[in-house]
Amino acid sequence: MSTDQPTRRRLERMDDLVSLCARRGFIFPSSEIYGGINGFWDYGPLGAELKQNLKALWWQRVVRQRPDVEGIDSAIIAHPRTWEASGHVEHFSDPMVDCKTCKRRFRADQIEDERCPEAPKKRAITDCDLTDPRNFNLMLQTQIGASSEAASTAYLRAETCQPIFNDFKRVREAARQKIPFGIAQIGKAFRNEINPRNFTFRSREFEQAELEFFVHPSEREKWFEHWQEERLAFHRELGFDDDHLRTRPHASDELAHYARAAVDVEYLFPFGWQEIEGIHDRGDWDLSRHSEYSGKDLGVTDPDTKEHYMPMVIETSVGIDRTVLALLCDAYSEEEVGEGDTRLVMHFPAGLAPLDVAVLPLSKKLAEPAHALEESLRRRFNVFYDEAGNIGRRYRRQDEAGTPFCVTIDFDTADDGKVTLRDRDSMSQDRVALEGVAAWLSERLEA
Amino acid sequence: MSTDQPTRRRLERMDDLVSLCARRGFIFPSSEIYGGINGFWDYGPLGAELKQNLKALWWQRVVRQRPDVEGIDSAIIAHPRTWEASGHVEHFSDPMVDCKTCKRRFRADQIEDERCPEAPKKRAITDCDLTDPRNFNLMLQTQIGASSEAASTAYLRAETCQPIFNDFKRVREAARQKIPFGIAQIGKAFRNEINPRNFTFRSREFEQAELEFFVHPSEREKWFEHWQEERLAFHRELGFDDDHLRTRPHASDELAHYARAAVDVEYLFPFGWQEIEGIHDRGDWDLSRHSEYSGKDLGVTDPDTKEHYMPMVIETSVGIDRTVLALLCDAYSEEEVGEGDTRLVMHFPAGLAPLDVAVLPLSKKLAEPAHALEESLRRRFNVFYDEAGNIGRRYRRQDEAGTPFCVTIDFDTADDGKVTLRDRDSMSQDRVALEGVAAWLSERLEA
Repeated sequence: MSTDQPTRRRLERMDDLVSLCARRGFIFPSSEIYGGINGFWDYGPLGAELKQNLKALWWQRVVRQRPDVEGIDSAIIAHPRTWEASGHVEHFSDPMVDCKTCKRRFRADQIEDERCPEAPKKRAITDCDLTDPRNFNLMLQTQIGASSEAASTAYLRAETCQPIFNDFKRVREAARQKIPFGIAQIGKAFRNEINPRNFTFRSREFEQAELEFFVHPSEREKWFEHWQEERLAFHRELGFDDDHLRTRPHASDELAHYARAAVDVEYLFPFGWQEIEGIHDRGDWDLSRHSEYSGKDLGVTDPDTKEHYMPMVIETSVGIDRTVLALLCDAYSEEEVGEGDTRLVMHFPAGLAPLDVAVLPLSKKLAEPAHALEESLRRRFNVFYDEAGNIGRRYRRQDEAGTPFCVTIDFDTADDGKVTLRDRDSMSQDRVALEGVAAWLSERLEA
Repeated sequence: MSTDQPTRRRLERMDDLVSLCARRGFIFPSSEIYGGINGFWDYGPLGAELKQNLKALWWQRVVRQRPDVEGIDSAIIAHPRTWEASGHVEHFSDPMVDCKTCKRRFRADQIEDERCPEAPKKRAITDCDLTDPRNFNLMLQTQIGASSEAASTAYLRAETCQPIFNDFKRVREAARQKIPFGIAQIGKAFRNEINPRNFTFRSREFEQAELEFFVHPSEREKWFEHWQEERLAFHRELGFDDDHLRTRPHASDELAHYARAAVDVEYLFPFGWQEIEGIHDRGDWDLSRHSEYSGKDLGVTDPDTKEHYMPMVIETSVGIDRTVLALLCDAYSEEEVGEGDTRLVMHFPAGLAPLDVAVLPLSKKLAEPAHALEESLRRRFNVFYDEAGNIGRRYRRQDEAGTPFCVTIDFDTADDGKVTLRDRDSMSQDRVALEGVAAWLSERLEA
């Protein structure tokens, strides 16, 4: 096997990734045995670990490492007034038209070049018998409580930031924080997207990691800059190619109703440049609205100048599922190795990879020392054990899972006390003493 | 200050805990500024870390440390057929009666000794003009999709285990697991409880950590025993007093429709013995029903005997919020220290406590070396920095937060290179070299 730079073919068709993800258990449709449910996805064993590692890194960088950020974990269902104050009940909708013949619904602003699904060769949708456009709210509703007359309507949160604004005063006081400081959380959000598409990119249930950073009005530009730099550094730490990562400021006519300025962090997916994170100057929109709707003053008083003011909010909002998808796309590689042989390998950054290390005895007869090593490594690492099949095929399976290192125990191990450590990316092999394996791995896995 | 065993008063009234939790930002009502929403709670900075530490420990013990368990992370919303197959659409309901006068709704089996809320002194509810009992399904419903005729009804999952059964075949094949093995996940579930009560104990949105362990029919008793022992050991690791922890087997008339045997792990809360975890022998109920409803055979073939059979399921289901509540109750202590002085201290086990260590410079003049220490510790620990107020008051604040250790930097530190490490429980103090602080903490925090 050569350690020369192999020819690398990057992901071109999403179908290749979708199929790998199902086969290896990264991500597959929710309720697959019932034919799936459009816009909902389940993370399998490898996907769940990858997503969890990403969330843990974000929490470490944004919350635990910063004295000026507090983490919370709020309920998905909040008081419905929350969503009136936020503007979602009024504004969070798409204009829709219904076809009077087939009863299908379409986004009014997306039918220009589309064909009628009933007769795609004969008709453009614009030629169908359509209703006038009506607004269709994207929030998922439910009924809670048990009054027999009118159960009360509640909403599944459409973004994780609104509960942060609800809790702003309580958290500021309990944590004794002063402006500038932030509140962050990771959690599920829901939107009834009309056309879920591009694998997990646009789905109806998704996970966000959001930070709302509260600043004095005179400092908003400074902090807007600060968080752009911080967040871009985070995405670089995820190992994304510079060619596949860019920031894009919003034009003034693109801004949401609450935003005074916005910059997207975009990744170049096989389906084009798309947002994986948004950095927004939300001004005092949210705190002012919640003050008005709740009757509670969410303003703060400067302890030195005694000025009473409404803090401005700089928001960083990363789509966890989208970033996992970018990690999967970025890691994907088909490579020629040896004569006419190819491998599919996922080049996840060490530390984010679902598995840290695989323990592979060369023969089942070596199971005992291999299990002993496996067990000792499990205390600190995410370990996979595999004793079935020839060693080349086992390496390939770990390449597909993106496992950075494999430890092979062979018949020399009993004599020289050494094992072979094989590197996923270079395929190079090191002989390392058994008792040094944990330290060897720590050095390479713990940044 | 004495290091003798202090007089300890345990939590007696839940109100004391509820008030501490709000004041210090462990847990408070969701949407508090809007008057709250019954049955929904937010975790503040300390509560979010405590809950996260508990979930991480469960994941480590149940998933990462075991070669025979795979973790997943499924969508909250599954195909609605899932809940028909599981029996929830038909059976997951309480019998309710409505008062024809005030329109309130009550659980038919809970009105025996209750008073009418409109005229509690005059009337028992049983004397009100009530409707006949009707079944009221506890699942939260929503509508998804965008057909103009009939949007489709979906349910927020009522338990995290059903998506595990949906994904059983996919995960088994992708992870190349053989019976016996398990699939686990942690996540939100929702039930429209009629009477949310006892702080977070019975709420409408809650988090579960569930393991479904699939076994051959001949081995179910063995594994049912195994998981009882494992799970009890887990709760002992959480530090619960033996006096406050017990198992209680269900009588045959208590069993749910799917269960053949069940044992509750119960904790003695101030409001009585209550379940924090259930261990269930679910038999082949779930896999058989999902096979029938989906038309997909979820049975397995024994690779040696070629026997084709439906695996039996041993389930362990822990309520994360309930266990956090038990941790809070168990940790709570009011103690006399010194002459007539008292402290409120949360004796969380090290490693589960929201904060690992507080860095406290004796004077603001020592902020520079204190910040340097703080920053170096943040890489590995959850650190709090506090330079305001007298040192006794700062220790008390950390006692209330349950922070196991405080590092005090004083004016001798510059000379002797040592700091004071103060132990939360014994209040004893050690002088430790600055460069040895991280190792001193690691030894005590990382089990």
